[in-house]
Amino acid sequence: MVFQKTIQLPSYARGFHLISEYVLQEVPKITGIVHVFIQHTSASLTLNENADPTVRLDFETFFNDLVPEEDSRYLHTEEGSDDMTSHIKSSLLGSSVSFPLNKGIPVWGIWQGIYLCEHRNAARRRTLVITVLGEEKVESLFPI
Amino acid sequence: MVFQKTIQLPSYARGFHLISEYVLQEVPKITGIVHVFIQHTSASLTLNENADPTVRLDFETFFNDLVPEEDSRYLHTEEGSDDMTSHIKSSLLGSSVSFPLNKGIPVWGIWQGIYLCEHRNAARRRTLVITVLGEEKVESLFPI
Amino acid sequence: MVFQKTIQLPSYARGFHLISEYVLQEVPKITGIVHVFIQHTSASLTLNENADPTVRLDFETFFNDLVPEEDSRYLHTEEGSDDMTSHIKSSLLGSSVSFPLNKGIPVWGIWQGIYLCEHRNAARRRTLVITVLGEEKVESLFPI
Repeated sequence: MVFQKTIQLPSYARGFHLISEYVLQEVPKITGIVHVFIQHTSASLTLNENADPTVRLDFETFFNDLVPEEDSRYLHTEEGSDDMTSHIKSSLLGSSVSFPLNKGIPVWGIWQGIYLCEHRNAARRRTLVITVLGEEKVESLFPI
Repeated sequence: MVFQKTIQLPSYARGFHLISEYVLQEVPKITGIVHVFIQHTSASLTLNENADPTVRLDFETFFNDLVPEEDSRYLHTEEGSDDMTSHIKSSLLGSSVSFPLNKGIPVWGIWQGIYLCEHRNAARRRTLVITVLGEEKVESLFPI
Repeated sequence: MVFQKTIQLPSYARGFHLISEYVLQEVPKITGIVHVFIQHTSASLTLNENADPTVRLDFETFFNDLVPEEDSRYLHTEEGSDDMTSHIKSSLLGSSVSFPLNKGIPVWGIWQGIYLCEHRNAARRRTLVITVLGEEKVESLFPI
C-alpha cells in the first residue's frame, strides 16, 4: 500500500522547529516506512531531540558558525548573504527524513522528533510530501 | 511493485554535477518512492539547486574548506591527500537520496535536482542502484 | 512485503564502529530496500569504508574537530560537554541508512559497510529498527 500527501507548513522564522505533529496526523495505521520530503533547497529536515527547546537554538548557533555568511568567495549570492549558505546547510542536513512505522505508530525513540530547518531569513511556507509505504499485515514482526 | 536497476554514470571530474536525467529516464509510471544509491565511499549524492551552475562551484569551495586535505593527523591516506577527505565528505552528504514519485513524475520542487558529488581527484565512472517502490493505485492521494 | 524487527546492539565506546553483520543477519531473501533506523539522538548511522580501521579513527578525529566540545555558547549541556555536540553530530550524519537489496543480498559496493557512530562518552546499548520493503518477484530487473 502507498499513501501520499502534500502538506503546507505554517511559515517559520529562520531556525530549527519541531514539526512532528503535522506529519503524524497524516499517517495511516499500517506498518512500513514514513518518508517525509521537503520540496525546497534552502530549508531541510532532520530528526533530533524533541523536548528541550535550547537544542534547537544551539543547532542554529552551530550551523551559522559552520557555514558563515560573511564568506566573500561564494558566487551564488544574488538573493542575499543567506542564499548560498542555505543551499549548503540544506545538503548537510538533507531534504528528507524517514522512519519506521508500526500499525500507525512511529517506532522512534521517546526523545525523537522531526525538525524543519529554515535556513532563510525571510519566513515562508514550506511544502512537504509525505509518502507511506507498507502493509497492514507484516511478514515477520518482533515485539518492540 | 519493485523496480531495481544498476546504471553506470559517465566519469566526472572532482566537483558537484547535475545527474537528474540519468535517474529520471529509468523511473516507471508508478506512485511511491525513488531510492538512488551510490556504490562508493568516496563519492556521494545530494539533492540541491538545479539551475545555476555557480551553486555547484560554491559547494566544491565550501567542502574543500570544511574538510581540508592538508591535515597531517589523518591515518588513512595511502591513496593520496584526497583519500580520507573523500570518505568524510561522502558521509556528510550521504550515499543515497530518495524522493516521492507520483505516476512516474518526481514530486520535487521546481529547483531541485540530483547531484553527483565526486570527491576524488581522478575521474572515474560511478555506479548507481535505482530502486523504485510503489503501486499503480494509491490508497489516499491528495492533489499536488 | 514488509519485514520489521527491533534489535539491540552491544555497547560500544565513543567512536565509529562497523556493525554490518548485525543488520545483514536479519535480512530476508527479497528484493527492495533495507531501512536501518537508530532510536536515539546522540548516536547516528552512516555507510562508509568497511576494511581499514584507521578510517573509523579518522572519522572520530574529524568530527571532534568539526563540533568542538569546548564551546561555551551551547545552552543544552546538562549531561556534560558531550551532550549538545552529540545531537549535532547525529544530525550531520543522520539517524538512518538505507540501501538496495537483491534477493537478500545487499547491492552495495565491496568497500561499503554500516557504521554505528557513538557520540557519547559513556558506552550504552543502542536500539535499531530494521525495516525491509520489497517483493520476491521484481518487475524490471537488470543484471547487476
